Amino acid sequence: MERKHDLAAAPGLFVTFEGGEGAGKSTQIRLLAETLRERGLAVLMTREPGGSRGAEAVRHVLLSGAAEAYGIRMEAILFAAARSDHVEQVIRPALAAGTVVLCDRFMDSSRVYQGITGNLEQPFVEALERVAINGVTPDSTIIFDLPAATGLERARQRSVGPGESEQPDRFEKEELETHEKRREAFLDIAEREPLRCRVVDATLTPEAIAAQVLAIVEPLLPIHAHGHPDPEQVS
Amino acid sequence: MERKHDLAAAPGLFVTFEGGEGAGKSTQIRLLAETLRERGLAVLMTREPGGSRGAEAVRHVLLSGAAEAYGIRMEAILFAAARSDHVEQVIRPALAAGTVVLCDRFMDSSRVYQGITGNLEQPFVEALERVAINGVTPDSTIIFDLPAATGLERARQRSVGPGESEQPDRFEKEELETHEKRREAFLDIAEREPLRCRVVDATLTPEAIAAQVLAIVEPLLPIHAHGHPDPEQVS
Repeated sequence: MERKHDLAAAPGLFVTFEGGEGAGKSTQIRLLAETLRERGLAVLMTREPGGSRGAEAVRHVLLSGAAEAYGIRMEAILFAAARSDHVEQVIRPALAAGTVVLCDRFMDSSRVYQGITGNLEQPFVEALERVAINGVTPDSTIIFDLPAATGLERARQRSVGPGESEQPDRFEKEELETHEKRREAFLDIAEREPLRCRVVDATLTPEAIAAQVLAIVEPLLPIHAHGHPDPEQVS
Repeated sequence: MERKHDLAAAPGLFVTFEGGEGAGKSTQIRLLAETLRERGLAVLMTREPGGSRGAEAVRHVLLSGAAEAYGIRMEAILFAAARSDHVEQVIRPALAAGTVVLCDRFMDSSRVYQGITGNLEQPFVEALERVAINGVTPDSTIIFDLPAATGLERARQRSVGPGESEQPDRFEKEELETHEKRREAFLDIAEREPLRCRVVDATLTPEAIAAQVLAIVEPLLPIHAHGHPDPEQVS
């Protein structure tokens, strides 16, 4: 696979993790980070929205009381401002320093959440993406795929605990349709960009998923990290 | 001249006023607004940055203590967020209602201040412009042209009063060069978009400039506003 981010001779690796809620992304990021660190690689785990000082300031505006007054368009631009800061202050310097960057959600989440289920026009979302990432495209994007009902149930158990998920029928159905639409949108992206994107079945056991994730990332790793690590360097 | 903003059958008129500091834009906007109101037209005077509630919120972030921490890129995106809110909440609805909108600074100021003297790449600035204005291009843009030294001197007198403008020579020279660069950039825009842009000599008397401005705007006015106004409707 070709390196996509435009850093001259960039020694780092940029991997993003995408998919609906309840797909187990954060667990897998932790597991992968551990494995890579055991091999002596410098790993940065980060996430969006947020991840840098400027991004946090913007997040504050988004979450402030006045937020409902903004339209979806301005909200999307503010998300782009946060992403730009995250890219320029955190991700780009880390890649330049040879770090493996693992990011929980990135540009594909904006495409799906703002473009598909947020009703923003595609050219607007695309222009905003170019502005925000400014050439720092992921080397690899792992999309965690899950039936909408399963993801919704897992996310619900996480927030309210099992057995407490009483909701009116109509609302539940609408929510399910939205999740299904997002799932399709993530799979569409994977189909359109097969070199960058790989889909992982998120209904498997965490161990099986971890093995798949490692199999995707391993061939992309900086060459010095392959083989057995020097035991002295393992932290 | 063709209407540029993409409002279906938009009855309003969108005029922007651009140029360096000290060119007398705000005086001319007031004079034009008076003339148009005397003819019975609904006129909205507005300005950037700011002009809407969301834009003011973003302005607050830009001016907050943490602002220096942001790069020029994120700052430009935040300006775009403010412009988007201004366009969607104020300018577009006013045009749709048939109002003549007179705006002090708009997209050309971003092209010049961020793109030319702010060192941002042209494709970045252009993508951001498309995102922010979202089809609401000015019908007419009046560029106030002034030798850099004259504009600088006028702006200085305005801020510190005459006779108090003591500055080190080197700083003065650099400031002059920056103003000259901006002047050239505004003239370049006028040359590249002759249908939208008209240049006015800002060294003339306010009366002479007002006559030129009216001559530019008059042919674009909604048809019912031509001829003598009904004296009962003059406010």
